[in-house]
Amino acid sequence: MIERTLYSADHEAFRDSFRRFVDKEIAPHHEAWEEQGYVDREVWSKAGANGFLCMTTPEAYGGAGADKLYSAVQMEELARGGFTGIGFGLHSEIVAPYILHYGSEDQKQRLLPRLASGEMVGAIAMSEPAAGSDLQGVKATALRQADGSYLLNGSKTFITNGWHADLVIVVAKTDPQAGAKGTSLLLVERGMKGFEKGKRLKKLGLKAQDTSELFFDNVRVPAENLLGGTAYENRGFICLMEQLPWERVQIAVTAVAAAQAAIDWTVQYVKDRRVFGQPVAAFQNTRYTLAELQTEVQIARVFVDKCLELVGDGKLDTATASMAKYWASDLQCKVMDECVQLHGGYGFMWEYPITRAYADARVQRIYGGTNEIMKEVISRAMGLGGK
Amino acid sequence: MIERTLYSADHEAFRDSFRRFVDKEIAPHHEAWEEQGYVDREVWSKAGANGFLCMTTPEAYGGAGADKLYSAVQMEELARGGFTGIGFGLHSEIVAPYILHYGSEDQKQRLLPRLASGEMVGAIAMSEPAAGSDLQGVKATALRQADGSYLLNGSKTFITNGWHADLVIVVAKTDPQAGAKGTSLLLVERGMKGFEKGKRLKKLGLKAQDTSELFFDNVRVPAENLLGGTAYENRGFICLMEQLPWERVQIAVTAVAAAQAAIDWTVQYVKDRRVFGQPVAAFQNTRYTLAELQTEVQIARVFVDKCLELVGDGKLDTATASMAKYWASDLQCKVMDECVQLHGGYGFMWEYPITRAYADARVQRIYGGTNEIMKEVISRAMGLGGK
Amino acid sequence: MIERTLYSADHEAFRDSFRRFVDKEIAPHHEAWEEQGYVDREVWSKAGANGFLCMTTPEAYGGAGADKLYSAVQMEELARGGFTGIGFGLHSEIVAPYILHYGSEDQKQRLLPRLASGEMVGAIAMSEPAAGSDLQGVKATALRQADGSYLLNGSKTFITNGWHADLVIVVAKTDPQAGAKGTSLLLVERGMKGFEKGKRLKKLGLKAQDTSELFFDNVRVPAENLLGGTAYENRGFICLMEQLPWERVQIAVTAVAAAQAAIDWTVQYVKDRRVFGQPVAAFQNTRYTLAELQTEVQIARVFVDKCLELVGDGKLDTATASMAKYWASDLQCKVMDECVQLHGGYGFMWEYPITRAYADARVQRIYGGTNEIMKEVISRAMGLGGK
Amino acid sequence: MIERTLYSADHEAFRDSFRRFVDKEIAPHHEAWEEQGYVDREVWSKAGANGFLCMTTPEAYGGAGADKLYSAVQMEELARGGFTGIGFGLHSEIVAPYILHYGSEDQKQRLLPRLASGEMVGAIAMSEPAAGSDLQGVKATALRQADGSYLLNGSKTFITNGWHADLVIVVAKTDPQAGAKGTSLLLVERGMKGFEKGKRLKKLGLKAQDTSELFFDNVRVPAENLLGGTAYENRGFICLMEQLPWERVQIAVTAVAAAQAAIDWTVQYVKDRRVFGQPVAAFQNTRYTLAELQTEVQIARVFVDKCLELVGDGKLDTATASMAKYWASDLQCKVMDECVQLHGGYGFMWEYPITRAYADARVQRIYGGTNEIMKEVISRAMGLGGK
Repeated sequence: MIERTLYSADHEAFRDSFRRFVDKEIAPHHEAWEEQGYVDREVWSKAGANGFLCMTTPEAYGGAGADKLYSAVQMEELARGGFTGIGFGLHSEIVAPYILHYGSEDQKQRLLPRLASGEMVGAIAMSEPAAGSDLQGVKATALRQADGSYLLNGSKTFITNGWHADLVIVVAKTDPQAGAKGTSLLLVERGMKGFEKGKRLKKLGLKAQDTSELFFDNVRVPAENLLGGTAYENRGFICLMEQLPWERVQIAVTAVAAAQAAIDWTVQYVKDRRVFGQPVAAFQNTRYTLAELQTEVQIARVFVDKCLELVGDGKLDTATASMAKYWASDLQCKVMDECVQLHGGYGFMWEYPITRAYADARVQRIYGGTNEIMKEVISRAMGLGGK
Repeated sequence: MIERTLYSADHEAFRDSFRRFVDKEIAPHHEAWEEQGYVDREVWSKAGANGFLCMTTPEAYGGAGADKLYSAVQMEELARGGFTGIGFGLHSEIVAPYILHYGSEDQKQRLLPRLASGEMVGAIAMSEPAAGSDLQGVKATALRQADGSYLLNGSKTFITNGWHADLVIVVAKTDPQAGAKGTSLLLVERGMKGFEKGKRLKKLGLKAQDTSELFFDNVRVPAENLLGGTAYENRGFICLMEQLPWERVQIAVTAVAAAQAAIDWTVQYVKDRRVFGQPVAAFQNTRYTLAELQTEVQIARVFVDKCLELVGDGKLDTATASMAKYWASDLQCKVMDECVQLHGGYGFMWEYPITRAYADARVQRIYGGTNEIMKEVISRAMGLGGK
Repeated sequence: MIERTLYSADHEAFRDSFRRFVDKEIAPHHEAWEEQGYVDREVWSKAGANGFLCMTTPEAYGGAGADKLYSAVQMEELARGGFTGIGFGLHSEIVAPYILHYGSEDQKQRLLPRLASGEMVGAIAMSEPAAGSDLQGVKATALRQADGSYLLNGSKTFITNGWHADLVIVVAKTDPQAGAKGTSLLLVERGMKGFEKGKRLKKLGLKAQDTSELFFDNVRVPAENLLGGTAYENRGFICLMEQLPWERVQIAVTAVAAAQAAIDWTVQYVKDRRVFGQPVAAFQNTRYTLAELQTEVQIARVFVDKCLELVGDGKLDTATASMAKYWASDLQCKVMDECVQLHGGYGFMWEYPITRAYADARVQRIYGGTNEIMKEVISRAMGLGGK
Repeated sequence: MIERTLYSADHEAFRDSFRRFVDKEIAPHHEAWEEQGYVDREVWSKAGANGFLCMTTPEAYGGAGADKLYSAVQMEELARGGFTGIGFGLHSEIVAPYILHYGSEDQKQRLLPRLASGEMVGAIAMSEPAAGSDLQGVKATALRQADGSYLLNGSKTFITNGWHADLVIVVAKTDPQAGAKGTSLLLVERGMKGFEKGKRLKKLGLKAQDTSELFFDNVRVPAENLLGGTAYENRGFICLMEQLPWERVQIAVTAVAAAQAAIDWTVQYVKDRRVFGQPVAAFQNTRYTLAELQTEVQIARVFVDKCLELVGDGKLDTATASMAKYWASDLQCKVMDECVQLHGGYGFMWEYPITRAYADARVQRIYGGTNEIMKEVISRAMGLGGK
């Protein structure tokens, strides 16, 4: 195994500290949260109180001004344990950065500290019932009214943190005729009239995630809630594109950590479990399968660590991030599938972590842009004529 | 597409009739049954009353004396609709045949009519917590007592129909020192003292199947409940081996029908769903993926139909049946995986049939002998020296 | 293994007879033919003399009026031995049928007996340097002249039997503006002025095949050499389409026979070869790999036999034939690849049949329409919107 | 694409210089060398004269005392051009290091300068007709005689540089009863009595490589030609094991460079080639395929570069090197296979570089320890019970 050089001693100390938090505040409850279909709201407040939310947000706005690797550590630890109900990553490293990078000073001051404290749970609403990975096909509209406010109409689905969300960045068309160039991002807050949450979606996995539908029926969004203010009207698509590399790498980070955990569980299982008079680990088929999986996860880890380095240097391009997202998530599913098989009948029993990890993994190839979209992006970067 | 020639007009008329039964008695309830974790007991009685149980059992014992293709039709119809909670196949084509082929006249007369009427639900208990596909590793013992009865001790798991079961064929060692050659099959009936059902197992899929653990604590099994009587004492392993070809083909039949249904749903979905300005069906990636899946399912169907023909002629060998089981179940999982992907985010939502079909499919590569065991069997038939 | 029921005792007797011919007239020379890059011309005459050419051509035209399974037997026997230099299949089952099905009575009488006797070697010229599987993109033109003859210009490549060919069916545009609907088939004979053969193409495999380039420089093709006569002018594309199912199945027949032979050689090899103190056959990796390959080849055989049955009944559709072609040729390459690996270093040595079979197999996924074209055809038959 | 950071400006300047050498002294002749089955002997002398042999050998022994990355640059450049007849890597980075690391001062002084100058071509003889990757199964014996010399008997095969070789490190048993612990390395020189070269082996690819059989018939090897002297008698296996990581990474370096070149050729080809009215590059199947290949080659490059870094730091373990070897060579073959397919018929024509690259690649999964052996090594490092 290759020693990782990405993280400093400080990062590793932080890992220990976060792991203790996870062991105390998340692990004992996650199964119950799966049953109820959402995590308890307090875990957000506790995380905020302990400084585990919005760590990369500057201290001036309530964060810790930490580098992104601290967030990567959190993602790894959550993925390792299969705590897929916890939406901290989206909140801290997707929602908060939009406000930080594009928000007005007022928006930053008003919202970021509340996201960092856990007072507000953040979400971003892109997908619609009729438009998945296709952001250009967004149908929600936010039409500027005479008073400068926007009248928001539309429905969104597959919204992570959706049921808990206090603040939702909504992708909508402020100029419906202009295609992608008519897209804006609106800050919709809990309590705005006409903003309704639909049912929590019942899913194959991510059972503790409160993924929801959201409905916007003539919601009046005040002008000051247009992300970035009027300068950013119709520029939402560019903002979305700029954030993609880091967002996609997050999925890859999660994928590698989850896959390595699955291998570790399975190595233990096949050593313990005996069949036909010997440990399952003694069969060549078992050994080769695990050797193949470990090889690919090791290779993925080196690659994703490299991507994280590039993120730190501000040098990660979208095509490379897309490679990481698609390949690591494909690998994650492959690892889960083979590890389920090596668990035999137990691999189908919900109480086994591998089974839940199998169910959870499947969506990683779909969200954040399907892996097919990733190949579009990569092929264009190779100069291959697209559609 | 190749026209199937396996079934006669009578079989197809029966398919219509069974489909009506499914539409009326199963389809409207299956989702609720998934929620509760087992099918209502009445569906068994109704099936019995309508002649849908133990169709291949001779009329003299309460069956219809039909050929096995009638059962294959049932399996196809249930798989097509995703009604995986219904354990008729195991009951009618695995449990009943043991009694028919090896049972004493008395056992046949006493038990078969009650299985055929649905008065009794049947199960077979092979797997143990510490022995999955390894029948030789069975630890349950049934030691002959002075009075001729057997004292049964042990625990079984992953038992299909286990929670409903009124009659369980239990695989146990009557001669624990003799390895496989000390195996017998015991008919354990509901109500026997010391026979307890454990919890229904929570699984990745097959949510409406009442798969359970079973416990046997000093159960006194009377001599007349040794399957086949004393002549069959210690011959259980041979019986189990003889039934394997047909049992394994049943999994393959199910796999092909489920996979074809998934393709059909997905073809419809990609035609309806638009993205980036055109139907998903218009993308070359979609078309090639579906063409590949349809090719393999078509090929599998021709092969499994051939196997069914051979079953009818009594000519299906174990290695060929193992080929069908492993290849069709691998294919089923591949089809489900690709079809989930083509559904995008909806492929992860539990309300979509493809999602449940994905979850259900995974166990097909594991039960009935893992696909690895199938490869052992095939390689031995090729004269390749096994361990 | 499943007993084949496709062939009658007569077919099997014929197989023996053809096998003797192969053993005597082909096997001892094939290696030398590989060195020289073409088979000796006499093997064609001998095959003709022995009645092994154009067997399915009616006796009236010099053939044996046999059913197509006799040709399938030949293809299997040649593939089994790796005698890929022998172009009988193309000659007898692609070239001759065009003349038989579309030719005028005069063309049939004049040409078929000479093809059947081996006096003439036949070829068909579709591919061009700038148009592979794309028949609509054919650039060769055959423009009708005042005297009724056609002036043929163009160049063709990848022409099987090209260097030996005495008779070439040339696909050319008689109406260059009309796209596919301006295509005709011309019978070009050795000696026509302006018809030149280019170099024999040096290839990865098929070393004894005289695949060549052909050039047509103002070749005057008399009106009576338009296949089918003027009634067929501009109808060549339809003729080409009609013949596709049988042509594609031929590739599949060859693929399965070659793959089975490779497995047989490899099973023998791994039993004989010892490494780390035991036969290679004893390793689980070896056994599982071979079990997987044998499973897929068995499945392919059942499917291709079914296709041959449908050919006999005139019921094979193009999509099903395309499935057989693509899947069997993909499988063939997979089998060769894995069997090479199981041969270790010897799998890379040219003197080993597996090595040559590996090299030969690769083109099967390309010619006869690339496997990508097959997926186009299949997806259209599924109603999926094309390009 | 990720910018490589492995090489310094000096390395890149060296790359330019070596590339000029390749363009002048290798590229124009390689096709002729393929025809004749070996490279001209002068290319060795010229390389030596230009300082391109044994660059990492200290200056004291005639080398340049360069770091290993200079050799990696050479390997990349040769692989990029498909110049697989050139055995510099084996000579400079496998043969010479054995002498440098284990040789006596006398051996180093006598042999290294002649290897560095190209006066001597080096080879290493491990594989035997009956023992491929299984070094413990070596049958060649070198029995110590009364006069201190060794009597060497045995035959070796698959010896790279074998036909040109002036110096062969022969793996033989000096204590045949002691298994691996009885292995020694002997320096056999051209002209020693009883040392005969067999035929150059005709192979699927590597056509210009003079891979040969070697025979040793009562060769008297003087005591001073035991590598390392008597202190190293019976310690050959340990030496072989110690060198494995770097040797295996060399195969991976070559694999990645060859694969990247194949992608580059293919991207160009699909942009130029038109079919069905558009460039092949416009088809989604083409674009996704190339996106997938480029992703994996990019990932492999990052991983192999990391391994090269670890080699430089003396920290590369055998399991990680085995991962690199197996995964990169598997990938190389996959890339070649897909790129051949995208070339259509031209992918089967020997004159196309992709075709030769396809043929050449196949052995990479076999030599240097088969990829199966790699999985053994990896699985043991994971603590999984081996055979």
